[in-house]
Order: sequence, then C-alpha cells, then structure tokens
Amino acid sequence: MVATTQSSTQRHRQVLAVDLGGTNLRVAVVGTDGSLSHRQHAPTAAELGPDSVLERMAKLIQSVAADAGLPPDAPVGIASPGPINPREGVVYFTPNLPGWRNVPLGPRIEQLTGRPTVTANDANCAGLGEVAFGAARGRTDVIYLGIGTGVGGAVISGGHLVDGVRGLGAELGHMCVAMDGPRCTCGGIGCLEAYVAGWAIAREGEMVATTADGEAIRRAAEGGSIHAGTIAVAARAGDEVARTLLARAGRALGVAIGTLTNIFNPELVVIGGGVARVGDHLLQPAREIVSSHCFHAMREDLRIVDATLGDDGGLFGAAALALETGPRRTGQA
Amino acid sequence: MVATTQSSTQRHRQVLAVDLGGTNLRVAVVGTDGSLSHRQHAPTAAELGPDSVLERMAKLIQSVAADAGLPPDAPVGIASPGPINPREGVVYFTPNLPGWRNVPLGPRIEQLTGRPTVTANDANCAGLGEVAFGAARGRTDVIYLGIGTGVGGAVISGGHLVDGVRGLGAELGHMCVAMDGPRCTCGGIGCLEAYVAGWAIAREGEMVATTADGEAIRRAAEGGSIHAGTIAVAARAGDEVARTLLARAGRALGVAIGTLTNIFNPELVVIGGGVARVGDHLLQPAREIVSSHCFHAMREDLRIVDATLGDDGGLFGAAALALETGPRRTGQA
Repeated sequence: MVATTQSSTQRHRQVLAVDLGGTNLRVAVVGTDGSLSHRQHAPTAAELGPDSVLERMAKLIQSVAADAGLPPDAPVGIASPGPINPREGVVYFTPNLPGWRNVPLGPRIEQLTGRPTVTANDANCAGLGEVAFGAARGRTDVIYLGIGTGVGGAVISGGHLVDGVRGLGAELGHMCVAMDGPRCTCGGIGCLEAYVAGWAIAREGEMVATTADGEAIRRAAEGGSIHAGTIAVAARAGDEVARTLLARAGRALGVAIGTLTNIFNPELVVIGGGVARVGDHLLQPAREIVSSHCFHAMREDLRIVDATLGDDGGLFGAAALALETGPRRTGQA
Repeated sequence: MVATTQSSTQRHRQVLAVDLGGTNLRVAVVGTDGSLSHRQHAPTAAELGPDSVLERMAKLIQSVAADAGLPPDAPVGIASPGPINPREGVVYFTPNLPGWRNVPLGPRIEQLTGRPTVTANDANCAGLGEVAFGAARGRTDVIYLGIGTGVGGAVISGGHLVDGVRGLGAELGHMCVAMDGPRCTCGGIGCLEAYVAGWAIAREGEMVATTADGEAIRRAAEGGSIHAGTIAVAARAGDEVARTLLARAGRALGVAIGTLTNIFNPELVVIGGGVARVGDHLLQPAREIVSSHCFHAMREDLRIVDATLGDDGGLFGAAALALETGPRRTGQA
C-alpha cells in the first residue's frame, strides 16, 4: 500500500483527503484504486477559531501521511463547507464554522504541510467522489444532489465540473421552483431547499404537529424535537398527513430534477445526503413528476440513482480533486 | 479577403456559415476576424421536404464558397432549429420544418459538398456567436437567453459549451419557475417560456383584450392580431394594464436568471431575440428581482447585457463552431 516510489513528476497514486465538517475533522489516504485507509479524526472545535483549526488539520494530515508512509509532496484535497473560492482556496464564510471569514484554507495548509493542496466545497466534492469512485463512476454528465440539513449540489457536464467564474456555482438547493413559494434561509423565495431540506421538512412538521392532524407526528417524535426522520417514521406507520407532507417536498425535488434535466441533459442524477434516506415517501413523488417537467428525449437519457459513498463522499471527492493534475490546484498564483 | 493559401492542416481562417430557418436559408462567409461577407439567401421552402432543402442548401453553400474563392475543404457550420444531436448532426424533429424527423443534416451536407460539417441548434449557435464575436467576446462563463416566439438558451461554463450527454441540453426556456404555473407548449408546467415567450405574452394580451381593461391593447393592435410588440406599444403609451402584463413576464425572467446565476456563477447573461426588444418594460422588472433570487456573491460577478449580433447571431455561432477544431465535428464516426 505504501507508495515509496512516487516522484513529483508522476501522478500520485495515493493522496491525503480531508473532510472539514462543523463537528469533525477527518483525514484519510485514498488511492486511485478507490481504497480508503489510515483514517484519523479529531473534533473540529471551530469555537477555537480558524488558526487553531488549520494548525490541528495540518498536524492530522502529517500524522496520517507518516502513518501511511506517503512522500512529503503527496498532495492534499480538502472538502470544506462553502461558499469557498476553489481557485484560491479561500473560504468566504460558512455558518457551520463560526468566525470563518475569508480564510485562506488552501494556501495555509499548503504552507503548514509543504504539500500541494486543492480545495472545493463539500457538495462539489461529494459529486466528484460519486463520479470518481461511486454511483456515477466513469460518467461524463452527472448531477449530484445532497439532501441533508441543507441542499447542496454538484454538476459534471461533458466531464468538466461546472462551478462558474469564481467557483461558487452549483448551488442547486437554491434553484427557484416556485416564484411565489416559501422563503428560504438564503433570503431567496421558493428555493428547492425551502421544500426539501431537513430544516424545511422539520418546519412543516412542527407546524402540522401543533394541530389536530399532527397526532401521529407527535407520537413519532416521542416528546423530542421533530425532524425529517420523525416525519418519515410517521409516514411509514401509515400516517397520511406525514405522507402528504413528504410528497409535497418530493414534488419540488422532482420539478428541480426536471429543470436540471432540461438544462444539462444528464445521464445520471445521483441523490445523497441524510434526508434522502427517508426513501420512497420522498423520492417516489419526485420520480413521478420528473417527466411532466422535462423533454421526453432527455428523460430517456436520464437515470435517478442513490449515492453509494455515504458519509465518505466528501473524502473521496477531495481525493479525486487531488489525484487530478490540472487547473484547480490552489496556491500556484 | 480570399484565402487561397489555406491548407487542410492549418486552422481555417474563413468558414461557411449556414442559418437554417423556418422561412429562409442563409449562407455567408465568416472569418476569424469577425468579418461576415458573401451573403446569399433563399427561401427554405420546407414544404418540399428535407431532401429538397438539403440539396438547395448544399448548392447555396457551394455558390457562396465559389464566390469567395474558398478552398474545397473549407468547413461548414450550420445553425439548425432543434432538437438536434450535435454529435451526429441529426435533427430529431422541429416544429418549424414540417416533415423533418431524424434528418442527418450534418452527414448529408458533408456528403453533398465534400466539406467537413458541424451543426448545433440555433440557440446554442446564437450564444456561441456572442462569445466568439459579440457581447460576450472572450468570456468563459456566459448564459445566453434568446427570447422570441419561443425561448432558447445556451450556456458556456469554464469555456465549454454545456449541452449534455446527447447535446440536447440548455433548454433554458423550459426551466420551471413556478411549479403550479401555466401550462407550456412543451407539455411542462410553469416554464420560463410560458411566461416570457412571444406566444405567452400574446396569449395573455389576447385574454386581457377581451375585457374592459384591454382598451389600450386593442387600440395598439389597430384591428390586427395581438403580439408582444402590441403590448409594448400600449405599455410605452402609458397603459398600466400592459405594463403589469409585461412586468409579470419580466419577473419570471428575473427568477430564471437568479436560478441560472446560482447554478452557473456566470459573469455575463446575454439577452437576445425579438421579444427582448420590448426593452425596459420587460427587462427592468427582471433586473429588479434577480438579487432576491441569487446569492449576493454571485450577483456581484454578474452583468446582464443585450446581445449585439441581432439576426446574424446564428450565422456567427455556426461559424464559431466551424472555426474551432475539436470534438463537435460531425460525420467522423
């Protein structure tokens, strides 16, 4: 497993993948063969501020590299919460990491470790991971939708990552599916996220739970807080109110997939994230409405599938970034 | 102007550009310097069937080539109504050309003229034309929206044309902006086109014109049929009903631009097509609502501008296709 013969002029066969989360900092070694090994993790402890996080991240990277016997120039790929400018490796700000504003994540890790470092936002990494090692392996035209607390996305079109002039694009959770729809946390109106994100489903569930119709949802919550999983439990138990609630979210998801199909003519839409685990009560209404919202010929090209990398999507995608040579390397300007 | 020294191994400096329209067939010579010369045109006469159109197109191409003294291997680019598979040069069908179904436009013209031939749909060509020779010259991240009888689009992201696995994408007129909105001619619901296309504005105008509120619109129609231009005349004359009607279409346009901004983080949105000439009564409400529907940082990167190539956008874009070497050449399989 240990790559002792790598030189800086050949493509690296093993790289260091980092997933910077709000709670945990995770590092592992990923190989071109899709192997993931030498995992280490530590609390992010974001409350200690960016410098502390960056220093501990660098130490964790070096520890994993030493453990795996990687050479000093083995590159690093980092999946970070966004918005992040992947060209410069700068995190503009992120709700999950208090105090982070214009943090030069890529350049600082490069400086602290001496390793070439590339960065991208976690949703783009999850999509890239699925293309490199997961459900969309070898595909050129892929949409990834990560449905969790928020909704993130990634687009690979003609084999290229679509992220725009400053690398901020693919905010697929913030496509408007209903111009007079509900307000979104981004400030927008009628965003996909405002229907299907964990917070949106929870909000609807809480409102219903205060009414006479909300008995099954209240029971599923067992006195605790209501979240997407609570609604899913009630729906599986046969509650029509919970099913209708999830179907409404699912339809918004289907409308967005239809629009994405008309824009990108993709071969695959890959759906991941914790809320997607709600399953058919959410996804079946989505599948049913897609055809009404895209061209027949493009519907023929399309398959909608589950992500396969789970929580490791970000790590695999960060690795995919680092395994590539190319224009997305930071710190070279 | 005449390129007598071109060899087949160097990039051609002048190419033959073809715009296949429902009414007219237009051919011209376009140079890398953006010069357009040796124009010829003929009626499409689509009612005579595909073979007749293809033969007359080939003759017109050869006539223009002879006139300009182009070598026998000077390539051809064709802008065609869609849906068209640009990889194979096959027009699947098109409402504007009766009887066209799976017509091998690219391969047939290649066969009839002996010239390498590339094809793309007219909206993609119009967008490529603006990037190569027009309002978006030299830009890498551009959205083109052509608002006419229908609404077409093109996307250039990171310098690459985004058109999907079979080249059918960028149907930006058929993004859903309102999941419970009006039915669209594509069969979908709440498409951008169902708000802002010439046919949609005309439909709204006709409905209003039958009511007591429709007096100014009826007057503007002067006894003739009502179309987007009619509503624009009434709006310019101060009619609040016409202004409200156009503002509603404009808001849908702005919502779509907001979504496209969140997806593509573009530097430029270029708006062309006949209905766009309605001007500020349509475009100002669009501009006003964009910020409410996209992220602040991406709004900062964005400018919304008018197309500059007018009716020649298709010709220029077809030329841009043919001037490039690359993977989009048909008939090589």
